[in-house]
Amino acid sequence: MMPSQRSQVPGFEVMSILARIDAMRAAGRDVVSLTAGEPGSGAPEAVNQAAAQIHAANTVLNYTAAMGIMPLREAIAGHYERWYGVTVPVERIAVTTGSSGAFMLSFLAAFDPGDRVALARPGYPAYRNILTALGIEVVDLDCGPAERFQPTVAQLEAEVRTHGELSGLILASPANPTGTMVERATLVELSRWCADHDVQLISDEIYHGISFGAENVSASEMESEAVVISSFSKYWGMPGWRLGWMVLPEHLVDPVSRLAGNVSLCPPHATQLAAVQAFSPESLSFAAAQVQGYAAARALVLDRLGELGWGEAAPADGAFYVYAHLSGQLARFGDSAAYCRSLLEEAGVAIVPGTDFDPVGGHEWVRLSLAPGEQAVAEGLRRILQFQRDQAGQAPLS
Amino acid sequence: MMPSQRSQVPGFEVMSILARIDAMRAAGRDVVSLTAGEPGSGAPEAVNQAAAQIHAANTVLNYTAAMGIMPLREAIAGHYERWYGVTVPVERIAVTTGSSGAFMLSFLAAFDPGDRVALARPGYPAYRNILTALGIEVVDLDCGPAERFQPTVAQLEAEVRTHGELSGLILASPANPTGTMVERATLVELSRWCADHDVQLISDEIYHGISFGAENVSASEMESEAVVISSFSKYWGMPGWRLGWMVLPEHLVDPVSRLAGNVSLCPPHATQLAAVQAFSPESLSFAAAQVQGYAAARALVLDRLGELGWGEAAPADGAFYVYAHLSGQLARFGDSAAYCRSLLEEAGVAIVPGTDFDPVGGHEWVRLSLAPGEQAVAEGLRRILQFQRDQAGQAPLS
Repeated sequence: MMPSQRSQVPGFEVMSILARIDAMRAAGRDVVSLTAGEPGSGAPEAVNQAAAQIHAANTVLNYTAAMGIMPLREAIAGHYERWYGVTVPVERIAVTTGSSGAFMLSFLAAFDPGDRVALARPGYPAYRNILTALGIEVVDLDCGPAERFQPTVAQLEAEVRTHGELSGLILASPANPTGTMVERATLVELSRWCADHDVQLISDEIYHGISFGAENVSASEMESEAVVISSFSKYWGMPGWRLGWMVLPEHLVDPVSRLAGNVSLCPPHATQLAAVQAFSPESLSFAAAQVQGYAAARALVLDRLGELGWGEAAPADGAFYVYAHLSGQLARFGDSAAYCRSLLEEAGVAIVPGTDFDPVGGHEWVRLSLAPGEQAVAEGLRRILQFQRDQAGQAPLS
Repeated sequence: MMPSQRSQVPGFEVMSILARIDAMRAAGRDVVSLTAGEPGSGAPEAVNQAAAQIHAANTVLNYTAAMGIMPLREAIAGHYERWYGVTVPVERIAVTTGSSGAFMLSFLAAFDPGDRVALARPGYPAYRNILTALGIEVVDLDCGPAERFQPTVAQLEAEVRTHGELSGLILASPANPTGTMVERATLVELSRWCADHDVQLISDEIYHGISFGAENVSASEMESEAVVISSFSKYWGMPGWRLGWMVLPEHLVDPVSRLAGNVSLCPPHATQLAAVQAFSPESLSFAAAQVQGYAAARALVLDRLGELGWGEAAPADGAFYVYAHLSGQLARFGDSAAYCRSLLEEAGVAIVPGTDFDPVGGHEWVRLSLAPGEQAVAEGLRRILQFQRDQAGQAPLS
């Protein structure tokens, strides 16, 4: 008996690093993990307390409507009104089981096997791997420093000219692993190009709210038929809760609703009830305060980039990552996987090699997560600098 | 812009009935819903209280391992030891986001587009619809009274002879909508046939524990490479929590682990922590007591079948459904959808037409759910009998 061909997608390298961290900590090692995109804050207190009350009362938790409970869909619509000044009809909002659930549903609803869908490389690996498992052809757009790590209309034009039509474009702003954001004018241009070319734009906005000066622009603000995907995982610090949402274009409402009833039945019920509290002024203040913490951690890393002797870093406009070329360190370690392995074992600091995000060039890059907060990042940086000095045979820090 | 071809799966009729019930209740109507497979009991108290404590303490809930937290996987392994006397290595247990998550992951891991997978008709519609969305060919096995509504080796042999090889068989025991179970000897025979013919057996055991005399036999007891799928939704009364699991054969452990890390990241974290309490003696007693309630409700329906003037019913060995032919009622109403619509509007009782479960013959059958418990079922029956008398122009009950 054999597994399917389509199941031969790569796993996340980051998952094996997390397993190694667990093992090291279990053996008594003190490890600073700057690995995952997991806020150290946890959820806003009002969300937690709402969930606690639901369970303390032994509330019967049946299935909800496949698209989610109406009070949460209304609260999300209110959020679009407040943050973007956009009126989204509640019928076009689908609550999902994390943004993961939204990716699966939107890819199934929009794309057939053999369709060609473009995305930036480097990028979030699950896009590529889910698309592949669904028989959809992944079209890499090689997005480096020259493109500010984001797709351009010129790239899309060249791709269509050279290899034929596209069915979709996945855009992430702020992006993972780079943190780089697209400006309003660029998003207008990209979404217009998609509309003109019958290309389904899927705009991953799960890091919205986490940015450091740059404006959060949503595809929901455009005159477009984009799918907008977002989540409670990042801004609200709720990755383990598995709750996200989509703003759907008219033509995908029925397909997603039917697919959701079959594929997932519904998102977690108590979490939906509790998440209504995520939009209270107190919860939004709490979330905003976390962004101040990421900003402080980001400043620490950007200030030390020269001292680290790493090369170019992607513009960390938003999200909570710094994605940097290893530059001079490559001569000693060969590639970023070896560098990260050695850094973890010798210095007890975990960061992630770029190979998860970029199968072509990622062996020269690393991603450092700011999500664990200023203190963890400060200690991580101290250890990284010491580790590199030790490796270079220089005198240790006094 | 158009939705994909593969998204053109049917929705659940039951979902529109649930929406209609909500609207009627909002308008002040008193509706008895014998519609969904949702236990009225809620979760065991220990599970709820564990969840309440986790949230009350503002616990930071990050992603877990894609296959689930180890204490829960260990608790599930213990459950197989106690219930079936089977030792399942914990590495072969995957916690999933409901059994829905398990269906998606196992179908992706085991089947490629164009593969042919057999299942009983009538059956749970999401099997058919997820398979179709993934480009897998659904092979209907016409399972009526002669087959006790379950696939037979003779049917499988005939199918392979006539239309060529199969890649998979989905078996559900107890089944939805029929409640019918396969006996040990039959499961042995079916799983041996699958092994001999390189057919991946997927055994849906989400209703295990809910049976009325018949033995719960698990495919995990067989010398086979079956995927066993189960859930906390039914026996433990936790449908809205979205937590299930799989027991995987060796060859699917790595593929499912890699797919899960991409497709879902992980199941809900707090729910995993709380679900460990589902296996305490108190929680298991609580669940067993609910089964007594379903048994009483079942007896009520089976006692009234003659008086109802319905035709043949599937053997309701387990689960909490009665699936019955409408027989004499068809002459008046035409089909089961019209019967159910009229019953709901006139008498305020909701049951489900068989069309969700059987696109060929379901228009003559209905499914009545026992899950709401004895009292709701008694009142539902009273109203159904009165409704049928009224419709027949007979004198109302005094």
